Amino acid sequence: MYDVIIIGSGPAGISASLYLKRANNNILVIGNNNSRLSLAHKIDNYYGFPEGINGKDLYNNGIEQAKNLGIDVLFEEVLGIRYENGFIVKTNINEYNSKYIVIATGSSNSKPNIKNLTNLEGKGISYCAICDGFFFKNKAISLIGNSNYVISECSDLINISDNISIFTNGEETSIELSDFLVEHPNIKVYNDKIIEVIGSDHLEGIKLENGDVIPADGLFVANGIASTSNLAIKLGVLLNNNFIKVDSNFETNVKGCFAIGDSIGGLLQISKCVSDGAICATYINKLLKEKE
Amino acid sequence: MYDVIIIGSGPAGISASLYLKRANNNILVIGNNNSRLSLAHKIDNYYGFPEGINGKDLYNNGIEQAKNLGIDVLFEEVLGIRYENGFIVKTNINEYNSKYIVIATGSSNSKPNIKNLTNLEGKGISYCAICDGFFFKNKAISLIGNSNYVISECSDLINISDNISIFTNGEETSIELSDFLVEHPNIKVYNDKIIEVIGSDHLEGIKLENGDVIPADGLFVANGIASTSNLAIKLGVLLNNNFIKVDSNFETNVKGCFAIGDSIGGLLQISKCVSDGAICATYINKLLKEKE
Repeated sequence: MYDVIIIGSGPAGISASLYLKRANNNILVIGNNNSRLSLAHKIDNYYGFPEGINGKDLYNNGIEQAKNLGIDVLFEEVLGIRYENGFIVKTNINEYNSKYIVIATGSSNSKPNIKNLTNLEGKGISYCAICDGFFFKNKAISLIGNSNYVISECSDLINISDNISIFTNGEETSIELSDFLVEHPNIKVYNDKIIEVIGSDHLEGIKLENGDVIPADGLFVANGIASTSNLAIKLGVLLNNNFIKVDSNFETNVKGCFAIGDSIGGLLQISKCVSDGAICATYINKLLKEKE
Repeated sequence: MYDVIIIGSGPAGISASLYLKRANNNILVIGNNNSRLSLAHKIDNYYGFPEGINGKDLYNNGIEQAKNLGIDVLFEEVLGIRYENGFIVKTNINEYNSKYIVIATGSSNSKPNIKNLTNLEGKGISYCAICDGFFFKNKAISLIGNSNYVISECSDLINISDNISIFTNGEETSIELSDFLVEHPNIKVYNDKIIEVIGSDHLEGIKLENGDVIPADGLFVANGIASTSNLAIKLGVLLNNNFIKVDSNFETNVKGCFAIGDSIGGLLQISKCVSDGAICATYINKLLKEKE
């Protein structure tokens, strides 16, 4: 069992890892090589680089810095986190256990731009299959997504209803989803773009670009990768405006689960992420020391 | 008049300057090339440097980064700050005015190691001539120090008493102090090391290594450069355990005066200093924008 698993390999996660590793803890970083940082053309306002630095270079510097200190950095897709006598992080490859967890997955992905989606949240629209699946027992269940994450969410729904549809929302069905559908021939797939979700009190149907309306009682949004808020919701971590709520030690309402960087909001800047990582790690170092 | 003067050219001060300048404000950084950072042989835990970085190199990188953005960085010795329709920063060379001030002068210098000194604070021992000088009108006033700062403090006391002594505490009299003493022949100077301050209810005398006890009613500590707490006390800024007290926007109890980095305590790490600077500057940018 690891002392700490850090989810996220951007400035916040790597900064935390540096402090945790230097205190001789057994840690693991799981990243997805998909940091917002990599998109920045030139960063002028992060202290220490006279000519500024390219976002991708800074991101890669961080990974290299961690590896140079002997930190294990894996690039896998985190699909979920749960707690059973320790935290269990499930990825597309494996499961990993730890005493503490640090969420450093950046600001949440933006929701798909679908008319009426926000209005129907909690009225049929959900972002967590394991949390809300039960409400749709034997009903018409649909999901949005096209990658490992929608497969993982769908797997949590298969025993709940025989009426399941997956919407790739305009994308061609991915290879991994195709493989999954071969094993589950009852699941229908729609490749048209969704333009609206229909309903006022509760979700009634999903309207596609071709004009068809597919009846639906529940719609689970699982597009792209599992976002910060997806992961948080699964663990029962409280959010505030899509950001994770933490106390002054960066601990969430779930004991042992911490969150840092853009995932908790505030100033969305590298410097603040790096500082969050340092302060949070210093606190976890203290907790681990006290347990010895 | 500058929009903002930042006192301190280490990670906190420079980081703040980057954010303030990029928002098109008219700013000035005054440093003393005496950052604690420069002493660090190798820094492994500041994000972005795969092989770590030497403290002096990082400090110099910061200065260069600021200058590359067109920020004025002066190396002068700050002797005091006061408020008169704006902040006035007095250095050994000049005076500068600004609407806002950011103190980023690092953690306070340690006090000289003199027996009984702490016990007599407020009972004759003072760290601010302009604040407490009046209490010692026509009494025996002494000062500890040997550089520009003790000269500046002494200048505030000359009209208060004819009985003034300066203790270099074991150092040979500096050239600047010698010049000052030529102009003020009434001031006595002692080069012996101080081993104890005598008194219980109030200061009575200063005991030197040679065994002499020099009678004294007040002793002003002004060794080295003006420390964070010296500067703060002069402005009426509240301290807490030698660190400056600030609110969540890094503003002190003195409106318009901010403090960041090691000067406010917390985790004394580069990453936290850099983050403080970014967050504080972003807030000041907002204030300046509202005033336009």
